[in-house]
Amino acid sequence: MAQGHEVLGLSRSAETARIAGDRRAVQAASCDPAILANTELVFLCTPVGMMLPTLTRLRPHLSPTTVLTDVGSVKAFVVEAIAPLWPNFVGGHPMAGTAETGIMAAQLGLFCDRPYVITPTESTPPAALSLVQEVVQSLGANLYTTTPALHDQAVAWISHLPILVSAGLITACMSEPNSQIQALAQAFASTGFKDTSRVGGGNPELGRMVAQFNRTALLNSLTVYHTQLEKLKELIKAEKWDDLELILTKNQAERPKFLD
Amino acid sequence: MAQGHEVLGLSRSAETARIAGDRRAVQAASCDPAILANTELVFLCTPVGMMLPTLTRLRPHLSPTTVLTDVGSVKAFVVEAIAPLWPNFVGGHPMAGTAETGIMAAQLGLFCDRPYVITPTESTPPAALSLVQEVVQSLGANLYTTTPALHDQAVAWISHLPILVSAGLITACMSEPNSQIQALAQAFASTGFKDTSRVGGGNPELGRMVAQFNRTALLNSLTVYHTQLEKLKELIKAEKWDDLELILTKNQAERPKFLD
Repeated sequence: MAQGHEVLGLSRSAETARIAGDRRAVQAASCDPAILANTELVFLCTPVGMMLPTLTRLRPHLSPTTVLTDVGSVKAFVVEAIAPLWPNFVGGHPMAGTAETGIMAAQLGLFCDRPYVITPTESTPPAALSLVQEVVQSLGANLYTTTPALHDQAVAWISHLPILVSAGLITACMSEPNSQIQALAQAFASTGFKDTSRVGGGNPELGRMVAQFNRTALLNSLTVYHTQLEKLKELIKAEKWDDLELILTKNQAERPKFLD
Repeated sequence: MAQGHEVLGLSRSAETARIAGDRRAVQAASCDPAILANTELVFLCTPVGMMLPTLTRLRPHLSPTTVLTDVGSVKAFVVEAIAPLWPNFVGGHPMAGTAETGIMAAQLGLFCDRPYVITPTESTPPAALSLVQEVVQSLGANLYTTTPALHDQAVAWISHLPILVSAGLITACMSEPNSQIQALAQAFASTGFKDTSRVGGGNPELGRMVAQFNRTALLNSLTVYHTQLEKLKELIKAEKWDDLELILTKNQAERPKFLD
């Protein structure tokens, strides 16, 4: 709305639709899919596993010229599921948001200066692609256009692998059988444990979802991770301290490339 | 000083000694080990690898009744190195501090309400143990008394293992050979990568030090971690999503035990 678009909302919940209107997140909102009849562009914002059933319900209400996009955090699964049913589809992944969910988390300028990835394929209609790119740019987001497979492997590295690496840390610490050591570990844990375990101790449904819908890329990342960790372990076993410090020094230099 | 103790400082650097006095961190400071001649209790605050050579230099200046303690973050290595040379020794590990080092990081109340671990052995003189416990308690720290081995395994879990787990994440992400995926990963990385990679991308000397001086406990933790991560990977391979979510749900419930 702030960019001059007319924004309509469709929700399963009448209460959500009412609040969306009250908070001026949309011009109008409804529980009736008929509200989408004359829309140019529809954003599918359900969990990844619900996109296909949702589209099946919405489909009879959409005009064939309507462009469909989504905001799911995995792309190959979504594109392969949706595009055959709705050719006028462009996969999308806005990388913004807070730990909050639901309509109360709506925020003006949420996408501003954040990455927004679109993943067209060879069969994506050029006009559909242009429309989504245009709208994304109007939000002030940083637009990236890539393939579903490249997107999925990139997010596996920096978003989904950390969840598993971090989850393994918690289960490993909890598996200590000596109750004295367990109690001391819990008493001594500080910022190092806190930060490294954060995403592995987060929303279990999110962890399940990324594993389920980005399985291939995540398994690939886990295999490489395993190899890298074994290399570090071998250096420690062999007491090759200079080699270990060299890798840690490289890590310290490389990490900022991911954080600019 | 704030607790009524008379505090003296010994540094290799005259500048550090001067600043320590100026900042009133000590009553007096010097570069001359003779300043320690009549001390009741000496805190050895060098890096772990420097403790033995430091004691060798100080030893001629200490009275046989002087109690020695240290602030190193590993204990079996230190206790085994120091106790034979100075029987009146009690290993210690104050779990406080900031990312800053040096005299400018001196802070009143630094140890207040933080864990302070002491690791006596069967041959530690009871009077030496009592003195260190008494001083630690006067600082308002939370005193834990345990063995060097139990201490080292506990800190391996929550402090040293996270460094390696996190370091492996950075080297794994950097090892992606496809430059497009590498660039996207670097562009998309956000708080999940940032937090999980923090301690693995930190001070390389610290990482080397914990691996070198807590090698056995760390290798044990890495072996258990490997088994736990493989379990998670097998669930993903076998698409056992309910089992995976169950573990992640348990993680979410268990993690706060480490953070109270």
